[in-house]
Amino acid sequence: MTNFKTKLDQRVKAVKSCVCIGLDPTLSRIPASLQAKYNQTEEIIFQFNRQLIETTHDLVCAYKPNIAFYEAQGTAGWQALEKTIQYIRQIDPNILVVLDAKRADIGHTNSVYVQALFEQLQVDAVTIHPYLGQEALRPFLQKTDKGLIILCRTSNPGAGEFQDLTVNSPLGTVPLYQHLAYQVTNYWNQNNNCALVVGATYPQELTQVRQIAGDLPFLIPGIGAQGGEVETTVKAGQNKQGRGMIINSSRSIIFASHNSDFAQAARQKTLELKNLINQYRLN
Amino acid sequence: MTNFKTKLDQRVKAVKSCVCIGLDPTLSRIPASLQAKYNQTEEIIFQFNRQLIETTHDLVCAYKPNIAFYEAQGTAGWQALEKTIQYIRQIDPNILVVLDAKRADIGHTNSVYVQALFEQLQVDAVTIHPYLGQEALRPFLQKTDKGLIILCRTSNPGAGEFQDLTVNSPLGTVPLYQHLAYQVTNYWNQNNNCALVVGATYPQELTQVRQIAGDLPFLIPGIGAQGGEVETTVKAGQNKQGRGMIINSSRSIIFASHNSDFAQAARQKTLELKNLINQYRLN
Repeated sequence: MTNFKTKLDQRVKAVKSCVCIGLDPTLSRIPASLQAKYNQTEEIIFQFNRQLIETTHDLVCAYKPNIAFYEAQGTAGWQALEKTIQYIRQIDPNILVVLDAKRADIGHTNSVYVQALFEQLQVDAVTIHPYLGQEALRPFLQKTDKGLIILCRTSNPGAGEFQDLTVNSPLGTVPLYQHLAYQVTNYWNQNNNCALVVGATYPQELTQVRQIAGDLPFLIPGIGAQGGEVETTVKAGQNKQGRGMIINSSRSIIFASHNSDFAQAARQKTLELKNLINQYRLN
Repeated sequence: MTNFKTKLDQRVKAVKSCVCIGLDPTLSRIPASLQAKYNQTEEIIFQFNRQLIETTHDLVCAYKPNIAFYEAQGTAGWQALEKTIQYIRQIDPNILVVLDAKRADIGHTNSVYVQALFEQLQVDAVTIHPYLGQEALRPFLQKTDKGLIILCRTSNPGAGEFQDLTVNSPLGTVPLYQHLAYQVTNYWNQNNNCALVVGATYPQELTQVRQIAGDLPFLIPGIGAQGGEVETTVKAGQNKQGRGMIINSSRSIIFASHNSDFAQAARQKTLELKNLINQYRLN
């Protein structure tokens, strides 16, 4: 079975795109035309996603639904998420599905999360909180055919409160996020299935993490609505092959238009982002 | 509206119990008699919980469903969780419902999690990962009527990988988990709605955190199946009033018997734990 890193690499090469679309369907922001056409929450969310996927699937390496936006609608949201993932599989099995669930518990519970996320929802990768350490995360790390994307330097303004605390590391005296990148790269990644979350809003930190993490894939949120800048992000984040990046944009793409042309507007935004990224990628 | 801390304090006083039962219904471990009686997953899980709640509700301060065990069953699990929470509300509205969901994302997404967890599921408190910092967690911290239970020193064997890293803090040079306790106590707790997760498997660390955190409530997992010892836990964890502890046990109680007497066996185990805890509580 192809592992996550290889699958990502192949997809990026095939469609020449590092763009990932965050499928975060805030119900109140879904165009009124769709809300009027479908009166059930499950169907409104699914049809919104379906149209976005239909118009953008040839331009992306991955889709990243953030589970919060589905849980907020309870059972209806969960069903919309399941249908969305199935639809992505159906339209192109080579597209990666990253579930942004930011999970992590003790080992016994993580083995149950593995079942929920990889067997029930059948995603390719999941985002993970690092605080409990490698030992607790083993049920995730043992999934050789899945991607485990560990929060390293997050994109939010207050990320530094803990992530920038100075600690002693084999790297020297460094911020916690750098030590985390070291631990993941050198100890957690035994199955070659780890990746890191590093926000586009912190290009200097992104450069540092790339130096530590070799060619590990990065999930890079923070472009667009959060203010991350494409040129500096790509130059700081790419590996030596000009790849290794899943550059996510959610709101700037999926809510590019609030009218019935939203899916076409999303395609246009995706195309622009894809091309802008490629302008600065090596190769 | 009564806040989480007051509600907890009142409940502990009323039933003289710091026991919290972790409702973590691993489907394969639910007694065969129940599996035979109800053939739908949703109903099997709900009826298992219902019988446990029916026999133990007068002995506990809280129930703590871990959402992983429900998500593992997809939509059926989510529905069983909703019904379980409703049943607890119905049997006694003074029992606290702590959702062990270990969430945390950037602020925009956390505001959506707040909706999912507190509006959809209507729980009293939720467990939270600290890695993104106070700024990201603000949508949670602003919920003055809810409890935000932040992971501090977790119960798993490998908890120390990051949590024990030495950092500079207003406390001096201390392990990260102590600095975290300091930050939460002094900055995050402005609405008097914060609590901390500290594992029973680390009594020395529990003592340290109690010294830093004043009378903040602690959620203390790790008793029972994970090996935490009651006497040392209570002596280390209680506040000056002999309270401030939600001592959780899951597997040792809910799977005390694998036969049709499971709910009675759970009651017996709960009673024993309640009494053992009270033996060492001040007052």
